[in-house]
Amino acid sequence: MNEVVNCAAYLEGRRVSNVDIHNIHEVLEHPEQFLWLGLHEPGEEMLEKFQKEFSLHDLAIEDAHNAHQRPKLERYGDTLFIVLRTAQKNELHNRIDFGETHFFVGTHFLVTIRHGSSISYKEVRKRCESTPHLLRKGQGFALYAIMDSIVDQYFPVVEAMEEELQDIEDKIFKEKPTRQTTEHIYQLKRQLLDVKRAVSPLVDISNRLTRFDTSLISEETQPYFRDIYDHALRINEMVDHARELLNTALEANFSLISISQSDVAKKFAGWAAILAVPTMVAGFYGMNFKFMPELEWHYGYPIVVFFTISLCILIFLMFRRSGWL
Amino acid sequence: MNEVVNCAAYLEGRRVSNVDIHNIHEVLEHPEQFLWLGLHEPGEEMLEKFQKEFSLHDLAIEDAHNAHQRPKLERYGDTLFIVLRTAQKNELHNRIDFGETHFFVGTHFLVTIRHGSSISYKEVRKRCESTPHLLRKGQGFALYAIMDSIVDQYFPVVEAMEEELQDIEDKIFKEKPTRQTTEHIYQLKRQLLDVKRAVSPLVDISNRLTRFDTSLISEETQPYFRDIYDHALRINEMVDHARELLNTALEANFSLISISQSDVAKKFAGWAAILAVPTMVAGFYGMNFKFMPELEWHYGYPIVVFFTISLCILIFLMFRRSGWL
Amino acid sequence: MNEVVNCAAYLEGRRVSNVDIHNIHEVLEHPEQFLWLGLHEPGEEMLEKFQKEFSLHDLAIEDAHNAHQRPKLERYGDTLFIVLRTAQKNELHNRIDFGETHFFVGTHFLVTIRHGSSISYKEVRKRCESTPHLLRKGQGFALYAIMDSIVDQYFPVVEAMEEELQDIEDKIFKEKPTRQTTEHIYQLKRQLLDVKRAVSPLVDISNRLTRFDTSLISEETQPYFRDIYDHALRINEMVDHARELLNTALEANFSLISISQSDVAKKFAGWAAILAVPTMVAGFYGMNFKFMPELEWHYGYPIVVFFTISLCILIFLMFRRSGWL
Amino acid sequence: MNEVVNCAAYLEGRRVSNVDIHNIHEVLEHPEQFLWLGLHEPGEEMLEKFQKEFSLHDLAIEDAHNAHQRPKLERYGDTLFIVLRTAQKNELHNRIDFGETHFFVGTHFLVTIRHGSSISYKEVRKRCESTPHLLRKGQGFALYAIMDSIVDQYFPVVEAMEEELQDIEDKIFKEKPTRQTTEHIYQLKRQLLDVKRAVSPLVDISNRLTRFDTSLISEETQPYFRDIYDHALRINEMVDHARELLNTALEANFSLISISQSDVAKKFAGWAAILAVPTMVAGFYGMNFKFMPELEWHYGYPIVVFFTISLCILIFLMFRRSGWL
Amino acid sequence: MNEVVNCAAYLEGRRVSNVDIHNIHEVLEHPEQFLWLGLHEPGEEMLEKFQKEFSLHDLAIEDAHNAHQRPKLERYGDTLFIVLRTAQKNELHNRIDFGETHFFVGTHFLVTIRHGSSISYKEVRKRCESTPHLLRKGQGFALYAIMDSIVDQYFPVVEAMEEELQDIEDKIFKEKPTRQTTEHIYQLKRQLLDVKRAVSPLVDISNRLTRFDTSLISEETQPYFRDIYDHALRINEMVDHARELLNTALEANFSLISISQSDVAKKFAGWAAILAVPTMVAGFYGMNFKFMPELEWHYGYPIVVFFTISLCILIFLMFRRSGWL
Repeated sequence: MNEVVNCAAYLEGRRVSNVDIHNIHEVLEHPEQFLWLGLHEPGEEMLEKFQKEFSLHDLAIEDAHNAHQRPKLERYGDTLFIVLRTAQKNELHNRIDFGETHFFVGTHFLVTIRHGSSISYKEVRKRCESTPHLLRKGQGFALYAIMDSIVDQYFPVVEAMEEELQDIEDKIFKEKPTRQTTEHIYQLKRQLLDVKRAVSPLVDISNRLTRFDTSLISEETQPYFRDIYDHALRINEMVDHARELLNTALEANFSLISISQSDVAKKFAGWAAILAVPTMVAGFYGMNFKFMPELEWHYGYPIVVFFTISLCILIFLMFRRSGWL
Repeated sequence: MNEVVNCAAYLEGRRVSNVDIHNIHEVLEHPEQFLWLGLHEPGEEMLEKFQKEFSLHDLAIEDAHNAHQRPKLERYGDTLFIVLRTAQKNELHNRIDFGETHFFVGTHFLVTIRHGSSISYKEVRKRCESTPHLLRKGQGFALYAIMDSIVDQYFPVVEAMEEELQDIEDKIFKEKPTRQTTEHIYQLKRQLLDVKRAVSPLVDISNRLTRFDTSLISEETQPYFRDIYDHALRINEMVDHARELLNTALEANFSLISISQSDVAKKFAGWAAILAVPTMVAGFYGMNFKFMPELEWHYGYPIVVFFTISLCILIFLMFRRSGWL
Repeated sequence: MNEVVNCAAYLEGRRVSNVDIHNIHEVLEHPEQFLWLGLHEPGEEMLEKFQKEFSLHDLAIEDAHNAHQRPKLERYGDTLFIVLRTAQKNELHNRIDFGETHFFVGTHFLVTIRHGSSISYKEVRKRCESTPHLLRKGQGFALYAIMDSIVDQYFPVVEAMEEELQDIEDKIFKEKPTRQTTEHIYQLKRQLLDVKRAVSPLVDISNRLTRFDTSLISEETQPYFRDIYDHALRINEMVDHARELLNTALEANFSLISISQSDVAKKFAGWAAILAVPTMVAGFYGMNFKFMPELEWHYGYPIVVFFTISLCILIFLMFRRSGWL
Repeated sequence: MNEVVNCAAYLEGRRVSNVDIHNIHEVLEHPEQFLWLGLHEPGEEMLEKFQKEFSLHDLAIEDAHNAHQRPKLERYGDTLFIVLRTAQKNELHNRIDFGETHFFVGTHFLVTIRHGSSISYKEVRKRCESTPHLLRKGQGFALYAIMDSIVDQYFPVVEAMEEELQDIEDKIFKEKPTRQTTEHIYQLKRQLLDVKRAVSPLVDISNRLTRFDTSLISEETQPYFRDIYDHALRINEMVDHARELLNTALEANFSLISISQSDVAKKFAGWAAILAVPTMVAGFYGMNFKFMPELEWHYGYPIVVFFTISLCILIFLMFRRSGWL
Repeated sequence: MNEVVNCAAYLEGRRVSNVDIHNIHEVLEHPEQFLWLGLHEPGEEMLEKFQKEFSLHDLAIEDAHNAHQRPKLERYGDTLFIVLRTAQKNELHNRIDFGETHFFVGTHFLVTIRHGSSISYKEVRKRCESTPHLLRKGQGFALYAIMDSIVDQYFPVVEAMEEELQDIEDKIFKEKPTRQTTEHIYQLKRQLLDVKRAVSPLVDISNRLTRFDTSLISEETQPYFRDIYDHALRINEMVDHARELLNTALEANFSLISISQSDVAKKFAGWAAILAVPTMVAGFYGMNFKFMPELEWHYGYPIVVFFTISLCILIFLMFRRSGWL
């Protein structure tokens, strides 16, 4: 039964016992303790047992079973249910892997349920256990610690996107416009929208947690959620900023495509004009008039060739000067 | 009189009797029961009888008679009147068929009136009757069950549109820009706006139902409407997301049209330059000067032909290298 | 004095007397009656008398004298002053004629003042008089009846614009892009904005009327204004929907212009290439070299002609295959 | 000392005395009177004296000294400080001249300070003095009178911009696209934004004045500010309307540029095709084959010329028919 | 230990003593005094000591240690924590250097912590000390003085950007469209967004300070923060204004690129048409028909040359007239 990652009871910020999943109710009878249970993609059977132990609402369990929800905070009776989306940069496939973590917060317990791609919260638990003076603030602090680690994982993701934007800028302004750049802009926009969708509900969620019922989130834990609120705001702002720049980049790219189109047309027109000269001259001296004195001249041919080449060079220089070539 | 699809009285979550449309008032006299009546495009006569039985407001009946309204929730005295739009993907004609369902919710009754294309709610009723412990929560739960099934029908519709968007992306970035792609983008945008129009009022409606007068929607039913609220929010977000991507796709498509225009121009210019060479050379040796030594040479002709072809190949290679051809 | 269209006193929903404009104060002394006065573009003299009879505020009279105001609802002491804009499709000139109607609502009177192009409210009055059980609700119901008829006149106007949009779509996607289509899009946008400007304040006005002081709008009349509120919302939505589609249509149109530009360029390039072949061949055999064996062949000419035509056909087929021609 | 434009005391709506700037405190001792002082770009010395006489806040005086502020309404203790921007069409340079007027409103005084380009308020004062039954409402009414005249000056400015927009439309749809039209659109947009910036805070300012402390703005004066509120809303709407149309005009202009570009390309391609025919024919009969029977025919030349011209005309007619020429 | 820039105690607005960092608690025991401490990029050790002296919250200290936060105002118990971003035009590299200043405001102290590029606040302190009648209002006034100097530094930054916009306009409308102009527009947009991000939270922060707990910000200091609020609003407006104009400039630039593209195409087509004439004529008289009377004429050649040149000039004049050349 490795759906259960970790299950322990805490008293005064210190782990007092590892708890078997079947003895949860015993721990819940000690109001001075709190239980911290970590699950990973639990099956239906597990969830059912779990529902009974904590006496949770049907809808909450249904929610916990479904991944692919939007981040939200909901209260079912005495229990708080939170859905967050996690994000990690997948360097291999150059995409962002999204996962989901659900939280149940009761007066004496915290349950986390991980779905999909997301790192384990073992590290977070260890860090919490190393600062018992903070963890004694209760399950609210444990909730904060995990949420904080989730939010912090967004920073490298967004920063990577900002670097990609910089790459795109370089390609647009320093290189030639290509189909690839346009597609790159589009794909980055898609990623930005995905991240935005995952992060923007966080602002509201963390804001509500700073003023929540103190039986679930103790008063001294509330300032910590303001910290998360602040980070969520900042990620949001970074995404919006990148999005607006990306829109401008798309338009700038378009302008530059037009300019280089115009440059091609000018170059083409210029060379066409230069080449038209010898063609015309040759045509003239190809006419079959009986009396064309130049044709009789001994040096007629070299003179005409010289004259034609000179004219071409002249036109070329004129165009170069006026910036057409 | 097959406007009446189904009419039954429920006690403690169990169907106790099928009720004739003429005996409705008898059921309404038993406050411990509730009546669940399903109508399908009722005529005026029917609606009149119906108005008398439930003593409904004139305006409510007028509303119930008209299809093509915007989704709304209104209270006329003791009765709640709700209009929802239903949507179904019509695979045959590749369009979305919209219908309408109106609800009257009283203290002891629920009436549903279906207009236009929409599936019957028989399945929903059956499912409710199979969970009497839930249905005993009253007409509010029956309302939830139908609304839930309506909202859930939007998911496949929106997902189909997301797939279409993916198709469009593939066409834009992998194939040539065509008139069809542009029209496809436009038609998808139209569909998205239609769905948006049908779904966005749902957010407000379901939100209000979570905090409604408990005589109509019992307190224990209210969390269920939060579930609908959540789904409505998600559909809305999916539509907005698709809409923003579609706008970007339209612009990206435009950029690529310009790029491929530019490519055509370059190719054309390149080949024009290559073909200009033999034309010019031929013109020169077509001149009628008396003294053109090359014309007298025995191998003049093959030499010139060879030289011209070589020059053309050289230019071709130069252009290929610089990416013009 | 045909500025006065109609002036009558009502008791219990029935017209009890036609009132001369000079005897208005007599009617106002009977609190169980209400007066319904209809004016059409009254002169200053008329308005002055009118102000005295109803003891209205200076600013209200000033407002009533000016057409070209934005729709609004204002309270001056005991009197409610409402400005609405009316709209009618002028089929002849294919434009929308806007007019204005002002209302004064007092505890026992309703005054309507029509400005500019708008149909008479005789029909509305007749319909009201034919349902005395409704009209007995007082001047608030009469106000509703006229507002309802004004709002309902917007539906055909907006529907005509939706049809125009459909026309534009057909022109864009089925026909060639023209200057006319672009101008048509622009003019439709202008009309949409005009209608939007006339309708959008109505949402707020009708919403406020649903919760207004009951001495002016009796409690049982208030649900009727919710009906108007609903219609105003719907017209607004239709306009916004059309506007967003129109913006997309403008961009799609632009894309298609670029595509057809690209098609022209391709066609041109293709034919230029085909025609370049015979020109080049002819040029070659026009050269004056002494020793060009082909020129001596007896069938040289027909062979070259045949070969040239074949090459042209070959190139044509190649281009056709790759979609350039 | 012509910084002081006018300084007078009013009792019951009538001017009772012209007041010397040094005797202001004497007037302020009569609570039944109010003082109306008009300044024009006062120096520091003046402002200092002025501050002492009315015992104003440091920050208020600092504000009054600075032009180039955004319109605002602020309360410093018992004194109300208002900044408004004035606008006038400068026909000569075809631009809008903005000025600023600051107001100090106390329980018994009104001070106006004009900065930059703005007309004098003598006319307003005269009009007020001619209606003592209104001016007796106090300094609040005088404030209204000036604000009203400021707001009314925006109408001709905005109407002139609407006419310019009409001009631009005519140029776009009736004439050829030019650089000038694009620049004109841009400059009009800039002016619209400037006016918007000057007017939009007015909506909030006038709205707050309709519900202000009655010791400064008497209750019977408040409806007058609703009038200003209404005008400010309307100017705002006009500007927004023009701005949205202008954006559409910019895009429409762009479409038409592309269409005319396309037309040029088509025309060019058409004529190129027509001219290619004689060139090709001439080339063919310029070949030097020994045996070309047509060359020997007696009427070969005129036949070929006739045939070529006919072909050109045919192609010309074909193109004309298909709309290319 | 030059992390401490300045540390002094103030009584009645006058500096009474310079305080050693170790004796801070002694000053804090005198409630009639307040302490003003200036730090510059303090190390961890310093912050720890500092936390103990003022008994600050863990999170506040963590915040103070991190630069790169978004501007915010937070309250930890009795202490106010404010983060502001400072901006300075770096003329050398033509970019904006952003820095950060953090504030701790307690009932009897003000601590400022500067991070990154920002000027010292010595000047501000000096100015405050020279107006003891103002500084006696307490630490709130000192806070105002520094915030005011920070906000005022944004004006030259934004004005420089407005000038750049003017430059861009000149380049767009007076010169040829270039890649540089497009890149310039993009970079200016980026800068505007950066400034916007730094300034826009200031509006809310300063607004909240005008109605803050009077134990930290004395009542008579509050109007001063309204002044800052006003300035923040104005900078915001300037940025938004510039941003909207910049978007329009980008589109106008694009239009002009298209127009100049069109001009190139027209010019090219015109000259091609003119050059086609002699080529065609020459081709005709190069035909080898036996019987071409003109070829035998004695003045055939000069006549044809003259005729051809005349035709070219005629076409040239025609094109010039119709604006093609």
